[in-house]
Amino acid sequence: MNYKMVGRFLAQILAVEGVFMIPAAVVSFLCGEVRAFQAFLWSFLIIGLVVVGLYLLCRGTESQFYAKEGLVCAGISWIVMGLLGCLPFYLSGEIPSYLDALFEIVSGFTTTGASILPEVEGMSKGLLYWRSFSHWLGGMGVLVLLLAIIPAGGRGRGYTMHILRAESPGPNVGKLVPKMKDTAKILYLIYILLTVLNVVFLLIGKMPVFDAVCTAFGTAGTGGFGIRNDSIAGYSPYLQNVCTVFMLLFGVNFSCYYLLLMRKIKNVFRDEELRMYMGAVIGSIILIVWNLKGFYGTLGETVRHAAFQVASIMTTTGFATTDFDLWPSFSKAVLLALMVVGACAGSTGGGLKCGRALLLLKSLRRNIRKVLHPQKVQIVRNNGQMVDEKVLENTNAYLAAYVVIVLLSFIVISLDGFSITTNISAVLACFNNIGPGFDAVGPTCNFAAYSPLSKVVLIADMLAGRLEIFPILILFSRSTWSHR
Amino acid sequence: MNYKMVGRFLAQILAVEGVFMIPAAVVSFLCGEVRAFQAFLWSFLIIGLVVVGLYLLCRGTESQFYAKEGLVCAGISWIVMGLLGCLPFYLSGEIPSYLDALFEIVSGFTTTGASILPEVEGMSKGLLYWRSFSHWLGGMGVLVLLLAIIPAGGRGRGYTMHILRAESPGPNVGKLVPKMKDTAKILYLIYILLTVLNVVFLLIGKMPVFDAVCTAFGTAGTGGFGIRNDSIAGYSPYLQNVCTVFMLLFGVNFSCYYLLLMRKIKNVFRDEELRMYMGAVIGSIILIVWNLKGFYGTLGETVRHAAFQVASIMTTTGFATTDFDLWPSFSKAVLLALMVVGACAGSTGGGLKCGRALLLLKSLRRNIRKVLHPQKVQIVRNNGQMVDEKVLENTNAYLAAYVVIVLLSFIVISLDGFSITTNISAVLACFNNIGPGFDAVGPTCNFAAYSPLSKVVLIADMLAGRLEIFPILILFSRSTWSHR
Repeated sequence: MNYKMVGRFLAQILAVEGVFMIPAAVVSFLCGEVRAFQAFLWSFLIIGLVVVGLYLLCRGTESQFYAKEGLVCAGISWIVMGLLGCLPFYLSGEIPSYLDALFEIVSGFTTTGASILPEVEGMSKGLLYWRSFSHWLGGMGVLVLLLAIIPAGGRGRGYTMHILRAESPGPNVGKLVPKMKDTAKILYLIYILLTVLNVVFLLIGKMPVFDAVCTAFGTAGTGGFGIRNDSIAGYSPYLQNVCTVFMLLFGVNFSCYYLLLMRKIKNVFRDEELRMYMGAVIGSIILIVWNLKGFYGTLGETVRHAAFQVASIMTTTGFATTDFDLWPSFSKAVLLALMVVGACAGSTGGGLKCGRALLLLKSLRRNIRKVLHPQKVQIVRNNGQMVDEKVLENTNAYLAAYVVIVLLSFIVISLDGFSITTNISAVLACFNNIGPGFDAVGPTCNFAAYSPLSKVVLIADMLAGRLEIFPILILFSRSTWSHR
Repeated sequence: MNYKMVGRFLAQILAVEGVFMIPAAVVSFLCGEVRAFQAFLWSFLIIGLVVVGLYLLCRGTESQFYAKEGLVCAGISWIVMGLLGCLPFYLSGEIPSYLDALFEIVSGFTTTGASILPEVEGMSKGLLYWRSFSHWLGGMGVLVLLLAIIPAGGRGRGYTMHILRAESPGPNVGKLVPKMKDTAKILYLIYILLTVLNVVFLLIGKMPVFDAVCTAFGTAGTGGFGIRNDSIAGYSPYLQNVCTVFMLLFGVNFSCYYLLLMRKIKNVFRDEELRMYMGAVIGSIILIVWNLKGFYGTLGETVRHAAFQVASIMTTTGFATTDFDLWPSFSKAVLLALMVVGACAGSTGGGLKCGRALLLLKSLRRNIRKVLHPQKVQIVRNNGQMVDEKVLENTNAYLAAYVVIVLLSFIVISLDGFSITTNISAVLACFNNIGPGFDAVGPTCNFAAYSPLSKVVLIADMLAGRLEIFPILILFSRSTWSHR
C-alpha cells in the first residue's frame, strides 16, 4: 500500500472540500447567521490543519499507483470527507449529535437524501445551502472533479484511470475521449450546464432564487434533500413537472449527452440501457396511474404524482410531492422494485443501475441457451458489441455482494424493533442512495429514531452503495493492508 | 425436442404417482370415508386413462437424450403430477376450488407446506395421508425414485444423469457411486431408513400412529404440512424436540450419510457446507434466545421454541410450535435471512442452499483479491478441491434468476393489496419451499385470501424453487420448442 500517495490525495480532496464550503459560509454571513458562520470558520480551521498535517506527513517520492490504491483512495476520501464535512452542522449546534450530523452529510455526499431532521425549515440558510450543495458535489463525484481541475504531472501510471473507475457508477466505465482528465472535464461541463438549465426553468416558474438553487443541487445530484418540510409538495404543478423532467434527465448516462453534442443522435437512440430506462419509467407510470384510479381528483393530478414519484425513486433522488406510503400495495411494490434497479450507469443516480440489470438478464439468458445448445459458444452483446467475460463476472459479483450486504444490514438494524417493511426499505433506501423508504421511514418520516448502531450501519450502506461496494469492502480486507 | 421420449417418461411418472396414491385410498377405505374413497377411485381412473393415452401416442424408436430433454421432462412431470395429484382433494369436494386443490398438492410435492386450508382437522384421514405423503414423495424427488426402480435398458446416453441433475437440489450434483442408478437407490435407502427412525422416535413419545407417520413424512420431505390446526404446538416438548432433531438431520446433504456408512467420518466433519449449516443453526439459536429474553417463562422453553423454529425455517420445513410472527423484529429478521439461505445442497430442503451461499461468498472474496493482486491467478476451492468456473457461473446465474423471479412475483401478488411484509414473505416462503411467512401469511394464517392470479404465481414460484429455476424457466424459452 502506497500510504504517502493516499495521504497526499486525501489532503487534496479535503482542500477541495474546504474551498467548496466557502459559498455556504458566505450565505451564512449574508443572512447574518452568527452561530452558523462561526461554525463554518471553525470547520475551515480544522480542515486546514488536517490538510497541512497530511501534506507534511506524506511528502516523498512518487511511485506506481495500482487499482488497489485507487479503491483505497476513493473509500477513505469519502469517509474523511464525511467526518469533516459534517462539522458545520455539529459545531453550530443545529444538529446536536455528531453521529446525526455525520449521517446527514454522508446522506448528502452519497446523494441519498435520507435525513434525521424532523423538520428543516428551522435550519439556517447557510447550512441548508451546504446540505444541498453536498448532493451536487457527491453526484458526479468529488474525486472526478479533483482530477478535472488539478494538474496531472508526475503521478504514476493509471492514477487518474483507477480513481475515476473506483468512483464512477456503472458496470463498465468508458472513456469519452482518449485522456481521462478530458473525460472528467467534459462530464463536469455537461453537469454544470444541465444544473444551470434546471435553475433557469425553476426561476421561470417563479421559485425564489435560494429555493431554485438548492432544489437544482438536489435534483442534479439525484440527492433529494429539500429545503421545505413537505419536500416539493408545496410548489406549483409546473415546478413539480420541471423537477420530474430534470430528475429523469440526470438519471441518463452522461455519455449520451456527449454523443448528442457530437451529433451522434442515432447512437443515443439505439442505446439499450437508455431504452430500458425509458421503458421502465413509462411502464411504471402507466401501471401506477392505473392502480391509483380514484385516489386523486383528476387524471392529470394522478399522472403528475405518479410521474414525479417514479422519476424520484428510479433516479434515486427521493423528492416527494405526496405521501406514497399511503398508495395501494401494488404501486408501492412497483416503487420498491424501481428502488432496486435504479437509474442508468454513468449518471448521478444510484441503485443497481439499468445497465447492470440488463447485463444480469442477458447473462441469465445466455445460461439458459448454454443448457439448450451446449455445443454453441454463447456470447453476450451490449449495443451490438461483445461484453467482456470479466465485466459479466464483476456484475454477478456485484449482485452477490449487494444481497449479502442488504441481508446483514437488515438483520443488524432489526435490533431496534421496527417493522420488517421499515427495516427492509430503510436498508434499500440507504444502500441505493434513494432517501425515503416505507412505513416508519416513509416520505413524511425520518431516520432519527434508529439507534446509533443502526445509524452507523446505514452510513456504511450509503457509502457502499455510492461507491459501488468494492472500495468500501476492500477497506475491510486483510490483504489490502498486508505488506506482502 | 424429443417429444415421444418426454411423453413416455411422463406416462411412467404418472403411473408411479397412481401407485403411490393407493395407500392413501386404503386409509380412506379403512376409515370408512365414502366420498374420499370414491374420489380416489375416480382419480385412479383418470390417471390410468392419461397413462394409457400417453403410451399409445408416444410409441416409437429411442434416440439421443440431452440435458434439454432432461430439464423439460423434470419441468413438465412436476406440473402434470400436480394437475392430476390434486384430483382427490377436488373430486371429494373437501377443497371445492380446483385451483386451491392444485395449490395444496403442489405445495405438498414441492415440500413447501403452504396451505390454503383455514383448518385441517376436519379433513378426512385418507386425504390428510395423501397430503403428507406428497411431501415424502417430493422431498427426495419422484423422478429420482423412478430412476431407482425402473429398468434402464435401451435409453439414450445420459438419460439418468440429465434427469437426476434437473431434479436434485444444489450447485453441484455428484455421483456417490459410478452408476447414477445405484446412487439413486442409495439415496432412497438412506431416506427410508431415516424416516422409519423418525417414526420410531415419535412412537416412543406416545404419538398416535397415524400422527407419527404423517409427521414423519412432513419432516422427511422438509415439507411442513401438519395434521393438526396448531401444527406441532399441541404435542409434548419431547415430541417437539424429536421433530427439531429430525428436521435438522433431513437438512444435511445425504452424501454425508453415505460417507458415514462408508466410515469416512473425517471427510464428513471436514465438509465446509455442513460446518456452515451447523454454524448458522447454532448461531441463529443463540441470537434468538438472547433476543427473546423474557418472552417465554423459562430459558428451557425459550431454547426449545427457538431451536424448533430455526430448524423449521432453515431446513425450509415450516412446522411451528409457536406464533413466531409475534416475536421481536430482530428474531424475525434472523428467520427471514435463514429463509433465503436454506438447508444443505443434496438434502430434501429448499432455499438457495448453504453450499451455494458458500460459493457466492467465496467467489466474492476471489473478486476482491483479483482487484488487489491482478497478476495472480485466483481459484475458488471447496473442501480443498478446485471449483469449476462453470459451477461458479451457474451459481451466479442462479442468484440473478432468484432475484428477478422474487421481484416480479412480489409485484404481481401486490395487486391483491396485502402489506409489503405479507407479500415479500409469501413469495420467499413459496419460492424457498418453506411454507409460512409473516403477517397475513404467518404461521397461524394461510394463503386462501390471495386471488387466483396470485395463487398461480405462487404455484409457479414453488415449482421454480423446488426444481431450482432452470427446468421451469426453460419451459418458457422459445428456443426450447423451436425445430432448428
